[in-house]
Amino acid sequence: MSLVVVGSVAIDSIDTIHGSHHNVLGGSATHFALAAGFFTQPKLVGVVGDDFPDDFMETLKGRDIDLAGLSVEKGQTFRWHGRYHADMNNRDTLDVQLGLFGDFKPVLPASYRKAECLFLANGSPATQSAVLDQMEKPKLVFLDTMDLWINTALNDLKAVLARVDGVVLNDSEAQALTGLHNTVAAARKIHDLGPRFVVVKKGEHGALAVAGDDVFVLPAFPTENVVDPTGAGDTFAGGMLGSLCRDGLDSLDFNKLRRAVSYGVVMGSFNVEGVAHTRLMSLTRSAIDQRLRAFANHIEIPF
Amino acid sequence: MSLVVVGSVAIDSIDTIHGSHHNVLGGSATHFALAAGFFTQPKLVGVVGDDFPDDFMETLKGRDIDLAGLSVEKGQTFRWHGRYHADMNNRDTLDVQLGLFGDFKPVLPASYRKAECLFLANGSPATQSAVLDQMEKPKLVFLDTMDLWINTALNDLKAVLARVDGVVLNDSEAQALTGLHNTVAAARKIHDLGPRFVVVKKGEHGALAVAGDDVFVLPAFPTENVVDPTGAGDTFAGGMLGSLCRDGLDSLDFNKLRRAVSYGVVMGSFNVEGVAHTRLMSLTRSAIDQRLRAFANHIEIPF
Repeated sequence: MSLVVVGSVAIDSIDTIHGSHHNVLGGSATHFALAAGFFTQPKLVGVVGDDFPDDFMETLKGRDIDLAGLSVEKGQTFRWHGRYHADMNNRDTLDVQLGLFGDFKPVLPASYRKAECLFLANGSPATQSAVLDQMEKPKLVFLDTMDLWINTALNDLKAVLARVDGVVLNDSEAQALTGLHNTVAAARKIHDLGPRFVVVKKGEHGALAVAGDDVFVLPAFPTENVVDPTGAGDTFAGGMLGSLCRDGLDSLDFNKLRRAVSYGVVMGSFNVEGVAHTRLMSLTRSAIDQRLRAFANHIEIPF
Repeated sequence: MSLVVVGSVAIDSIDTIHGSHHNVLGGSATHFALAAGFFTQPKLVGVVGDDFPDDFMETLKGRDIDLAGLSVEKGQTFRWHGRYHADMNNRDTLDVQLGLFGDFKPVLPASYRKAECLFLANGSPATQSAVLDQMEKPKLVFLDTMDLWINTALNDLKAVLARVDGVVLNDSEAQALTGLHNTVAAARKIHDLGPRFVVVKKGEHGALAVAGDDVFVLPAFPTENVVDPTGAGDTFAGGMLGSLCRDGLDSLDFNKLRRAVSYGVVMGSFNVEGVAHTRLMSLTRSAIDQRLRAFANHIEIPF
């Protein structure tokens, strides 16, 4: 199944208690596509400026990612600068320069419009709707969102939520969207807004998925090696959607979503082990499956 | 196997966003014993004053708990008043009156000293050591502790940690004890202090257990029904130690600890569904096992 991702491609600067990393490859669509590429060939839609480093472009070209939808324009690439707290789970945004991404009106190449799967990475609900309008007949559409849109464009967000199959968002965002502190209750309430699959990312505390009466819950993969959490959420989404699209959508059941969420947790756990996208560059599909089995073992209740 | 618990028996007042509950049954040893009683007959060591309500005593007597070690003295029972934040996971202590518990020097009845299992609920490390000195040859000793002792009696705490088999503590306490934010790393560091089993309680985020190179991690049981979290940690410990002692200690392996931690999570999930200890009063052993199976299903990764 083909999988389109629409989102940001960025140049990040990251401060952690372990060190600072300036001008590294970032962006939601980047992290998503690099992760999804282990499961299927993602088609990326985004924009970068003429300041986008050649070696970043070579990195993307070196993976099995369709870049027909990535436009390079005169201007500045989206830049983000953030600083992680000592707990490595919370962060402050120090600077954002939207650049070309601020006025980005994604236009999907004709070859993308027939894709079965679509992931709308964090972006304005109006833009997400406009992308959805360009798709011919997608079988599975997930979106991500953030507090900004919940606070400034709630009606638009609810409108696009009613059009998608699934949503993936942080626990704090689920709480902001519903007013409910309890993650299970918040996920159920979002489910009632339209999406049949609701996936709540909880960072170092794992993830929770709701579909109808089914509830699937996972802790994070237990790792001591947290170098840089940037992009973990998008890597999670890339692993999840990649797994879903690879498994096929004709009989999409909750077990496929469970497996997909599990791959999401595993991909996120790899992502945090290196700066920016770097850990994924040395990753193999067999290492991913090996960690999934190790993860299943870490959570197995012996009867 | 017989199981002794030494800790507080208290009168609590609890404020939550859902309501306030004054003068309800509380205390670490109370919650522990009520939970452990579903697995084995616990022997309780504690002290209450002549203000301890008759119906609380009847509640304890009505369960299969050995109360030979519970002394009733002239004076005031330990009282705690707390208020939960809207997230139901954090709380502020509004008032503490130690009463008789402040000067409590536990003396174990002769019939308790041969017990195989001992749980030292939160208390001063010096008191915990003094209790341990009274035991003849326990096979399994776990202790709980809190920030107060980490901050004011660290050397005493390290001394008693070196004498026990296991420790169960909150993630914030594990962090305070080790200076490490990462829960896995903190648990490993505590393991190096002596206890061969380290169990970190994460409240609404589940639990993590470390023994040597083995790591077991669980999310919380996914429930929307959180009425009062008071005593959830002690109920967790009661379910865990109860399960361990019932399983027998002659070939204590990590799988038995995994099952025990799982029972701990399940017992904690029941506890939060009612005010104070009340949910446990209507609980049956088959309902516990049914929830454990449901829990295993909620976390099952389908391959």
